[in-house]
Amino acid sequence: MTHSSNIYLHDIALDEARSAWAGALLDVGAWASLLSETVPLDRARGRVTAAPVWARISAPHYHASAMDGYAVRSEDTTGATETQPKQLAIGAQAVYVDTGDPLPVGMNAVVMIEQVQEIADQTTEDRGRETGNENPSVVSRPPSLYPSSIEILQSVPPWQHVRAMGEDMVASELVLPVNHRIRPQDIGALAGCGHSTVSVYRRPRVAIIPTGSELVPPGHPAKAGEIIEYNSLVLGALAEEAGCDVTRYPIHKDDYDAIKQTVQLAMRDHDLVMINAGSSAGKEDFTSRIMAELGRVVVHGVAIRPGHPIILGVADVETRGMRVSTMGSMRVPAMRGVALVGIPGYPVSAAVTFDLLVRPLLYRWQGQLPPERHTLEAALTRKLVSSMGDDEFVRVMLGQVGGHIVATPLAGGAGVITSLVKADGVLHVPRYKEGHHAGERVTVELMRERRQIDHTIVVIGSHDMTLDVLGNALSSTLYAPRLVSSHVGSLGGLMALQRGEAHVAGSHLLDEGTGDYNVGYINELLSAHGIRVVLLGFVKRMQGLMVRRGNPKSIQSLADLTRADVTFINRQRGAGTRVLLDFQLKQSGIAARQIRGYERQEYTHLSVAAAVASGSVDCGLGILAAARALNVDFVPLFNERYDLVIPVEHYESELLQPMLAVIRDPAFAQQVLALGGYEIDQMGVVLAQM
Amino acid sequence: MTHSSNIYLHDIALDEARSAWAGALLDVGAWASLLSETVPLDRARGRVTAAPVWARISAPHYHASAMDGYAVRSEDTTGATETQPKQLAIGAQAVYVDTGDPLPVGMNAVVMIEQVQEIADQTTEDRGRETGNENPSVVSRPPSLYPSSIEILQSVPPWQHVRAMGEDMVASELVLPVNHRIRPQDIGALAGCGHSTVSVYRRPRVAIIPTGSELVPPGHPAKAGEIIEYNSLVLGALAEEAGCDVTRYPIHKDDYDAIKQTVQLAMRDHDLVMINAGSSAGKEDFTSRIMAELGRVVVHGVAIRPGHPIILGVADVETRGMRVSTMGSMRVPAMRGVALVGIPGYPVSAAVTFDLLVRPLLYRWQGQLPPERHTLEAALTRKLVSSMGDDEFVRVMLGQVGGHIVATPLAGGAGVITSLVKADGVLHVPRYKEGHHAGERVTVELMRERRQIDHTIVVIGSHDMTLDVLGNALSSTLYAPRLVSSHVGSLGGLMALQRGEAHVAGSHLLDEGTGDYNVGYINELLSAHGIRVVLLGFVKRMQGLMVRRGNPKSIQSLADLTRADVTFINRQRGAGTRVLLDFQLKQSGIAARQIRGYERQEYTHLSVAAAVASGSVDCGLGILAAARALNVDFVPLFNERYDLVIPVEHYESELLQPMLAVIRDPAFAQQVLALGGYEIDQMGVVLAQM
Repeated sequence: MTHSSNIYLHDIALDEARSAWAGALLDVGAWASLLSETVPLDRARGRVTAAPVWARISAPHYHASAMDGYAVRSEDTTGATETQPKQLAIGAQAVYVDTGDPLPVGMNAVVMIEQVQEIADQTTEDRGRETGNENPSVVSRPPSLYPSSIEILQSVPPWQHVRAMGEDMVASELVLPVNHRIRPQDIGALAGCGHSTVSVYRRPRVAIIPTGSELVPPGHPAKAGEIIEYNSLVLGALAEEAGCDVTRYPIHKDDYDAIKQTVQLAMRDHDLVMINAGSSAGKEDFTSRIMAELGRVVVHGVAIRPGHPIILGVADVETRGMRVSTMGSMRVPAMRGVALVGIPGYPVSAAVTFDLLVRPLLYRWQGQLPPERHTLEAALTRKLVSSMGDDEFVRVMLGQVGGHIVATPLAGGAGVITSLVKADGVLHVPRYKEGHHAGERVTVELMRERRQIDHTIVVIGSHDMTLDVLGNALSSTLYAPRLVSSHVGSLGGLMALQRGEAHVAGSHLLDEGTGDYNVGYINELLSAHGIRVVLLGFVKRMQGLMVRRGNPKSIQSLADLTRADVTFINRQRGAGTRVLLDFQLKQSGIAARQIRGYERQEYTHLSVAAAVASGSVDCGLGILAAARALNVDFVPLFNERYDLVIPVEHYESELLQPMLAVIRDPAFAQQVLALGGYEIDQMGVVLAQM
Repeated sequence: MTHSSNIYLHDIALDEARSAWAGALLDVGAWASLLSETVPLDRARGRVTAAPVWARISAPHYHASAMDGYAVRSEDTTGATETQPKQLAIGAQAVYVDTGDPLPVGMNAVVMIEQVQEIADQTTEDRGRETGNENPSVVSRPPSLYPSSIEILQSVPPWQHVRAMGEDMVASELVLPVNHRIRPQDIGALAGCGHSTVSVYRRPRVAIIPTGSELVPPGHPAKAGEIIEYNSLVLGALAEEAGCDVTRYPIHKDDYDAIKQTVQLAMRDHDLVMINAGSSAGKEDFTSRIMAELGRVVVHGVAIRPGHPIILGVADVETRGMRVSTMGSMRVPAMRGVALVGIPGYPVSAAVTFDLLVRPLLYRWQGQLPPERHTLEAALTRKLVSSMGDDEFVRVMLGQVGGHIVATPLAGGAGVITSLVKADGVLHVPRYKEGHHAGERVTVELMRERRQIDHTIVVIGSHDMTLDVLGNALSSTLYAPRLVSSHVGSLGGLMALQRGEAHVAGSHLLDEGTGDYNVGYINELLSAHGIRVVLLGFVKRMQGLMVRRGNPKSIQSLADLTRADVTFINRQRGAGTRVLLDFQLKQSGIAARQIRGYERQEYTHLSVAAAVASGSVDCGLGILAAARALNVDFVPLFNERYDLVIPVEHYESELLQPMLAVIRDPAFAQQVLALGGYEIDQMGVVLAQM
């Protein structure tokens, strides 16, 4: 197997990669913007003018009456006053006009119907017919009165109540420049000055080829080792958002020749071909080799994170049936350039590299810059260490708590698509910067509307499924804020309140001394720091051991955890369930080291249930709702209180009122009861203010 | 003819109108949002979830290796060090995995391939086959080396380099709440947790019925009195932008029964029916009567300007084939509500009333608020008098000149669609407020991206067609600022510079004493106020009399203007052409009162040419380019200089450099020469700095 000789730039900086690729694209003439097409106006919305549009006719294209009334000659009215009115004969000196009617030749002003006295001395003439009005019933005066002249009480200046020809647009003036994205009102202007079509850039054509023997399509039951292919859906939607026509090819197995053949085919009909695969060293080689054989690799590896392995290339293909540009004297060459991209396989890497490198090109081809993104300043909630060699793009959640906005970096690597779903913004840490310290003010590029950020209730703490139900209930109300919850355990939630980073903490911290919940921890972590809070009753829930279906190992109590044949999975330090476990173990005289798996940690009830369901462990402590959701069995052991801790400042704020209303809404309580394993007798009750 | 008895709210305030209509719509059950449909994920972009989406499977749905390397049991590695390495047998204790491969049962960590020593003592086993890798060529080590065990130099913590099941999403967790507009990354998350379709709100169905006997379709040659119908295009595009499916009906003549029949038909298949016509008193009656007969008029007339005559109504029709909502237990009633709207006929009124009253409803039906619009503070350039009784929405142009942003209300009534094309923002003057004084700071809702406002060159002054060509040349460059020009005459332009409202003024003011251009005026109006400017050569152009084709009245000189059979049209006071005329009349000893039409004013060269072309006057003074554009004849009389006056502060600014570069670009000069009637020998030359 021979590799094409291929000299390319390796691991270069983002800006260098952009300009190297842009230069190579220019060299091969890969500029889709040279190609235009003509579309009818009802298909023009959102398209971009490929040439300036000049008015073909004036608008109005005649002098039009701007009122219902009488068209007159200004000169005939000179000197009229209330005491010395002037009479004008209907027909020769005054002609009735409706709004929009043309001014009769010689007339140069209009008097409103309300400002004339009509004088009737004949009834034979049908005024309705005279004015061309085919439906006399719309005239509000009695139809029996047909005046022969009008009397006016003041002189009329020339051009009064007249929309002069060209008032809106004058024939030959510039209506829209080139490179203008067409909005609804622009369509009106185009039609108004005589156009029924407009010349716009052809949409860039984008091909996406997903490759990988491990891939299966969405909805397909996936076995272990198989991966649901959705990058082509995400990339396709992103390209459509950028105004492109998209072809999604079927999944290709890792078959070099088949992939190469499809790339070659796609190049014939597309301006940009994306091959999505192979962020792992072995597979990515396929893509770069195919790109080198069919064209040229310009850049292999860009110093960004995520997205380092991206490959940028160009190729040229023979044109067929391509149209000549209407702009200037440029002619489409016999060869046509195509952009090639090897997109990394991890979903976040794929989306980020598209955003940084592909999206600007797609807009540029249409004479546009990508839509503006807004930024805001926020304080980082934790230290952020960045890899020195790369420009790093960190997804963050934002919340306005009290007066200030805080940014929390989202956990999860390039494989976690939900980090893009949850992200409110992106923080760019430039190359050669080590990162940021906690509390540092940083500039974040927004991924949501600013008002959504301002209108967000930040809940940090222990996870409970009822929070999902609560969040969804808020979403179903138009003006309610959205609820965003992060799961860091009960202790983490109280610490977040202490640092002013959250509005609400969900907590089920057992007080080992008193048997009460949360109060002792609040005293120590919040009251002692001058933070006054409301302790709000939420749910009581059953904690127990989640075990595999049928409970094959007959696990009945904590004592069974010490058995040699039983493996356990724990919750993280600070989690209320962990505190409960440690308390109960102590009561039962069991040491942590006796339990196989005590040191293995998961961060949510559902993750523990999933671990049990997968068969990788035998049991874990958690709540009934999670066991039900994952279809594992449940051995109930303890009932515990899960409260909401809310600083008084927020409890009384306007922001939280819709959430408090939902919590106290019986319909919501019913939804929670339907989950199973919950008691709601204290839901919404203020248990303490402290 | 009987009117249905119809009690409705008349001329009420905007907020009252909104809530009255919303209430009536609720009464008849006109809530399109109750209806949902299921779409495949590749059609889901931009749609809105009609129900919460819960994860069907976890992602990953198995414990996956996050690296290429060996899967091991953490316990087997305890105690390994560089001096005391541990050997693990391949097969029983270590299994080679690629990134994404499932962890073999019992293994709980991965060691990167780079961190192990592979020990080969056999060559018979085909490692390629063993790992299921079908293409051994991608393995970077020599294929002859097949190890039987690995040696590791440090202990491996559990779950190292493992993407645990559910790391991204755990089965049954909330992935997207209801009322969530689906973005590309959301589609990825939906696919990743086991969905291939999603339940979204059906798009609201909007019908638009243009009515009016005077209307003709776009592209149709329009006679005087005929109006090109484009409101249905604009309203249709606006409704599509709001996520609707739109039906545009053909133009209906003012035939009561035919319109009523179409409205009735449209009600059967649409959620909202807009009848566009009749802002005049007579015709609007059709719409309200039809609405009253087929349903109920709720509001007739809202105290807004423009848009006062809008009519809001409701109706109910029998459902057919409608689906039951997936949300809760709501069932679609046997009768289905429809929203009816009588939209005013003037294009600006139509667009503004759609924006204020229809658009919010269309979004609300999809569980959304309309997209956020940004605002900014600006200083008004002139006094603004508002009608006391109405909420007024004033279209303004914005420009950042020096450090401050100025807002200039756009001229033109509700019939001027280009005021919406040119508008950068909208200023809302609340009801019962008299207006604003010049210089007052006001809040403007933006209609463009903020960066476009900041990146705009404001040119105010005399109009010349070369400014259109210059503006278009800037538009063809991706990063160049846009050029916005207002035509207020030369004197008005210099005054705007004095007040700091423009970057550039176009001026051709003849100095009657010296015969020079502009210098005297600049001294008086700018230098005397401490404003230093550059006087930049632009074009010399021929001024002459524009006359009808064939010059039927044989007009040859200014002396002919005094003839009784010759009518003239003048330019406004302060226009350079007006100064030139007055100077030349004085030279020729002709008095203004001898000229029929001296007092009638137009504001641009093209408007004067249009007046001549229309036959309403015999001649006017103007430039050759305008005469050519409107196809009238031209009698050349004088050559004059048209300069650009630019304050030094702006001349040296970064903003203006692209414009200066275009002016000095020979390609641009060629385009100007091609217009005819221009000399360009001083284009881009600094004539004076003063």
